[in-house]
Amino acid sequence: MSERKEFRDLADPERAREVVASLDLSAGTERVALEDARGRVLAERVDAALDVPGFDRAAMDGYAVRAPDTYGTDSDPTVLPVVGSVHAGETPDLALDDGEAAEISTGAVMPEGADAVVIVERTEELGGAADAGGAGGDEPDGDSDGSGRRVRIETAVTPGENVMLAGADIAAGERALGPGTELTPREIGLLSALGVDDLVVRATPRVAIVSTGDELVRPGGALDHRAGQIHDVNSYAVATAVEEAGGEPVVYPHVGDDMGAMEETLVEAAEECDLVLTSGSTSASAVDVVYRVVDERGELLLHGVAIKPGKPMLVGRIGGDSGGDEGAAYVGLPGYPVSALTIFRTFVAPAIRSSAGLPEPRTARIDGEMAVTERTEEGRRRLLAVGLVEDEAGETLVYPVDKGSGATTTLTAADGVVDVPADRNRLSAGERVTVDLFSPAVRPPTLLGVGEDDPALSRALDRLERPRYLARGSRGGLRELREGLPDVAVVAGPFDAGEEGVADAADLGGWSREWGLVVPAGNPDGVTGLADLVDRDLSFVNRGTESGLRTNLSNALADLADDRGVDRRAITESVSGFDRAARAFESPARSVAAGDADAGLGLRATAATLGLGFVPVGSQTVRVLANPDRQEKASVRDLDGLLEDVSPVLDGLDGFEPR
Amino acid sequence: MSERKEFRDLADPERAREVVASLDLSAGTERVALEDARGRVLAERVDAALDVPGFDRAAMDGYAVRAPDTYGTDSDPTVLPVVGSVHAGETPDLALDDGEAAEISTGAVMPEGADAVVIVERTEELGGAADAGGAGGDEPDGDSDGSGRRVRIETAVTPGENVMLAGADIAAGERALGPGTELTPREIGLLSALGVDDLVVRATPRVAIVSTGDELVRPGGALDHRAGQIHDVNSYAVATAVEEAGGEPVVYPHVGDDMGAMEETLVEAAEECDLVLTSGSTSASAVDVVYRVVDERGELLLHGVAIKPGKPMLVGRIGGDSGGDEGAAYVGLPGYPVSALTIFRTFVAPAIRSSAGLPEPRTARIDGEMAVTERTEEGRRRLLAVGLVEDEAGETLVYPVDKGSGATTTLTAADGVVDVPADRNRLSAGERVTVDLFSPAVRPPTLLGVGEDDPALSRALDRLERPRYLARGSRGGLRELREGLPDVAVVAGPFDAGEEGVADAADLGGWSREWGLVVPAGNPDGVTGLADLVDRDLSFVNRGTESGLRTNLSNALADLADDRGVDRRAITESVSGFDRAARAFESPARSVAAGDADAGLGLRATAATLGLGFVPVGSQTVRVLANPDRQEKASVRDLDGLLEDVSPVLDGLDGFEPR
Repeated sequence: MSERKEFRDLADPERAREVVASLDLSAGTERVALEDARGRVLAERVDAALDVPGFDRAAMDGYAVRAPDTYGTDSDPTVLPVVGSVHAGETPDLALDDGEAAEISTGAVMPEGADAVVIVERTEELGGAADAGGAGGDEPDGDSDGSGRRVRIETAVTPGENVMLAGADIAAGERALGPGTELTPREIGLLSALGVDDLVVRATPRVAIVSTGDELVRPGGALDHRAGQIHDVNSYAVATAVEEAGGEPVVYPHVGDDMGAMEETLVEAAEECDLVLTSGSTSASAVDVVYRVVDERGELLLHGVAIKPGKPMLVGRIGGDSGGDEGAAYVGLPGYPVSALTIFRTFVAPAIRSSAGLPEPRTARIDGEMAVTERTEEGRRRLLAVGLVEDEAGETLVYPVDKGSGATTTLTAADGVVDVPADRNRLSAGERVTVDLFSPAVRPPTLLGVGEDDPALSRALDRLERPRYLARGSRGGLRELREGLPDVAVVAGPFDAGEEGVADAADLGGWSREWGLVVPAGNPDGVTGLADLVDRDLSFVNRGTESGLRTNLSNALADLADDRGVDRRAITESVSGFDRAARAFESPARSVAAGDADAGLGLRATAATLGLGFVPVGSQTVRVLANPDRQEKASVRDLDGLLEDVSPVLDGLDGFEPR
Repeated sequence: MSERKEFRDLADPERAREVVASLDLSAGTERVALEDARGRVLAERVDAALDVPGFDRAAMDGYAVRAPDTYGTDSDPTVLPVVGSVHAGETPDLALDDGEAAEISTGAVMPEGADAVVIVERTEELGGAADAGGAGGDEPDGDSDGSGRRVRIETAVTPGENVMLAGADIAAGERALGPGTELTPREIGLLSALGVDDLVVRATPRVAIVSTGDELVRPGGALDHRAGQIHDVNSYAVATAVEEAGGEPVVYPHVGDDMGAMEETLVEAAEECDLVLTSGSTSASAVDVVYRVVDERGELLLHGVAIKPGKPMLVGRIGGDSGGDEGAAYVGLPGYPVSALTIFRTFVAPAIRSSAGLPEPRTARIDGEMAVTERTEEGRRRLLAVGLVEDEAGETLVYPVDKGSGATTTLTAADGVVDVPADRNRLSAGERVTVDLFSPAVRPPTLLGVGEDDPALSRALDRLERPRYLARGSRGGLRELREGLPDVAVVAGPFDAGEEGVADAADLGGWSREWGLVVPAGNPDGVTGLADLVDRDLSFVNRGTESGLRTNLSNALADLADDRGVDRRAITESVSGFDRAARAFESPARSVAAGDADAGLGLRATAATLGLGFVPVGSQTVRVLANPDRQEKASVRDLDGLLEDVSPVLDGLDGFEPR
């Protein structure tokens, strides 16, 4: 074990942040077309190169006049001859003399001689002189263009009224937008007004993503489970996070743990990009190889940071030579996806945003109350992944969701992290905590459910908006319900309805499902029931102890023992594979389908879906129980309404019946 | 005027929202590659198609063992022979018997027979039997692979400890992500783990943007000011807003007010897109033409909404025929950019997001206090564009910024809107209001300055982060400073420093600038000073009365009048163009450059920049005055620091000197 890299003298997180910030990720500037400029950041100040508007323009529809001609009209309307019309986009073919008006449209050029506009609502056009008899006030004797048009002016205007003077919006030479301005629709609008159709923006930093580790296979590729292969989670997740931070991700072909290949890829990436991220393998050998490449072909500035998750973080530079190639900044992310994204978000994203000129997003935090007590390891600061749920009053409850061990489901079951200082070793239920949300867009799920996994339930969840469901089995659901955490618990099979914390729960509804033994298609072993599992040499796959299905199976086996007058334990011990516990409702059936077992505990619906045989044993009820303190929560009421007529949800699911 | 469309019976805003929501913008679904899926929304539920992990895997580096072999080791360490090693990505070539251990890496396949892992930190590998003497506890007589490797186990583990069982993260058949899930890096990570490399997402609605109006010219094109041409602001601003809302904007070639061309473009857009937006001209004729096309080739559902800005909003459908073409939804936006974006944000963006399956963004609101009193028109609900500034204590002050009349600078001078009910006719200074921010990313400017426009000031602002500067002249700056609104006021030339509200202001520093008459290059008229403006037939362009430059000019002309013993008014009346007031510091010089004037009031620096001649008259001081209540605000201190040595800011500006 001596060649394995131990992480000693971990850097303080603040120090790590400084080291990452000191890396030069700047990508310079580039010119982009206005229509491609959304979200980009101005590299230079933009001054107006022209006056906006470029001419004195009418700000309203109405009549252009000389203001003094309207004085006194509030009490005594005046009638002016209309010498013509000016519309937006036309060169005026007229000029106003004293005592004349011209019809004018919003946006039109003010004709020479006019200095104000009377809005159309305060005028009445009178047509030819023939119908002028009804108009009061001073009437001119005739009209200037022979058309006989005249207008009654019913209000006085001051010079400049309803006119936008040339340059009044912004004048040539004025500072329009400063360097560092992020371009939203509003800035794009102002730039359009200024006639700017391309502009110089901060270049997007290119970020290389190199995944390492012999065991990783990109999504879409086939896995060899026996060889311990898993899909490469970090490459696309980190690439997406890079994009979100304003960088341009460049995903390189996967490299294994081979030093030569890794060196080649990393040096190439350093030439082509501003920042190189490695990520992927959790294996110490891959980390060692990356470490050696960075050490030999660059410079390692930091090795390990005193934060959990994320201890094995590397920071440095790769590439660069005396010939002017500066190489690239380098950060090695931990292998576990939750750790990799946490470290990326905490240390790397700010550096990418800074390089792109983008501001730090508005702090996305939410205060809440710990729903349960969580013990943490003292001596190291911890970013504890947590999920959120709102109680009926809208108060936020916080619960830890980290399954540890690199679970990828933690990625989507968590909403943010609680920063637990190194000197704390527990967060107590009821304690106030602040959650740093993963992004400002994160919102707590509308509904939090815990319990049995079930195909009808999956369909019901599809009909709700943003629910979260933690499939922890019926026993898990009941346990969490007693703790008061979820909005609903889903329980299959028998349970103690009188138990404290459960007795008050409202039964929102449910269904029954037929269970039994899933066997290969055509039932080649001629299995007829549970007795065959006990009496014959059949390999079986059970569900875990949390599952309601297992409870029913155990009860049925107990009945069999009673019938036979033998010890229950003797019966279960006779079932080969009784302790072979699979996690999800389809898992035993899939083992059968894969030829790994002769029979599996499961549902008729699953056997039908997978094209397998089925030997029925019984039916069990699935109940959706509402937390007594959440019955008025909107999502609980939605679910209640949905379960009132569950038939559409069950449609086509073999062996499922409304209760 | 009879053919002009009047907007009567305006729809209630809630009704308008319902009508827009009733339009069918749905674009269906499409399949995208995982790497292109960021920000997209799942159209279907994704169930796990495989177990993750696909095998029992070591969750830590250490030694795979049979748990019972470690019982009791906490008090009495045991030593086990090491029968081999398993690394991540390898098929184990060994199986464990009772009393054996195997070195194992995180992520590696658990070898047959092993059921737990002892972490490396709680072990010590002892090497060959030769150096086993120091190890206590039960020592095996030999080793199984002949290598002599042995390990001391210092802690007991339970079955399953530090092991992730196959499917423990997520099992085949389990519900992984529900329909409607927005794909962030975390969901991309989970999908990667499941090996999903493409997926079915909600299609992005295509949104046609058709700009109308004879007077509009796209950015990049040349303007004919005499014909009242202006740049098309809305097309790119709205396109950017469409993108931001999750739509795909399609900007069509500009059409004028011609009915035939507009009909052709709108019908084509309706065939190609899910939603057609018109936008652009404020002219009634263009609105009329659009109205007629929608009325004849589609259906008009709503015409006008009782909200300001935005009254002239149209909602309907265009195109569609009995042959199955459904046509497209249609919304006509007002022509003024601030109005167009406000109506887009209020009514259209929610419909686009809904079609794309994207959630409404977290409400971005901020409470603040009106800094000034604003009167509004009673009888119509108003969305009042406002800017924000924070006082020293971080309290938000709110001030109206709408210049009205279609000003495009309002786009960037505002941070959000205050929703003023129809029955209110004023917002009083000191009143609490809620501001709906334009987006969650909007933050108040760090520094709000008001006052004289000046090239050195523009440079100083470039060195601050997110400042906002309202160029309202020295008098405007002083007026706002007295009101207590801005952080700093910038004043050029003489002013009454003893005035209330100004006397307490801190002078942060400043510079002097040489001013005079900007004349054509080479000074063809041989202008020598102000007297020439009075005595000769020269056309002049002045600055507005708010400008400190104009104050200095007026003072100099007054001195000239005193010298000559004539009336001051007689002197200014002799200057042809004394009342021709240009808005910004470069404007008079630009008039000279354009041949529209013989001389303009301006700065030596401006003449140098534009390659014009300059006749010096004097120098004036530019002062940066801090609001007495904001002197400790971070940005004010930053500016104060910057002004301590102003030389770098002035570098290269002709006629500018440190004070």
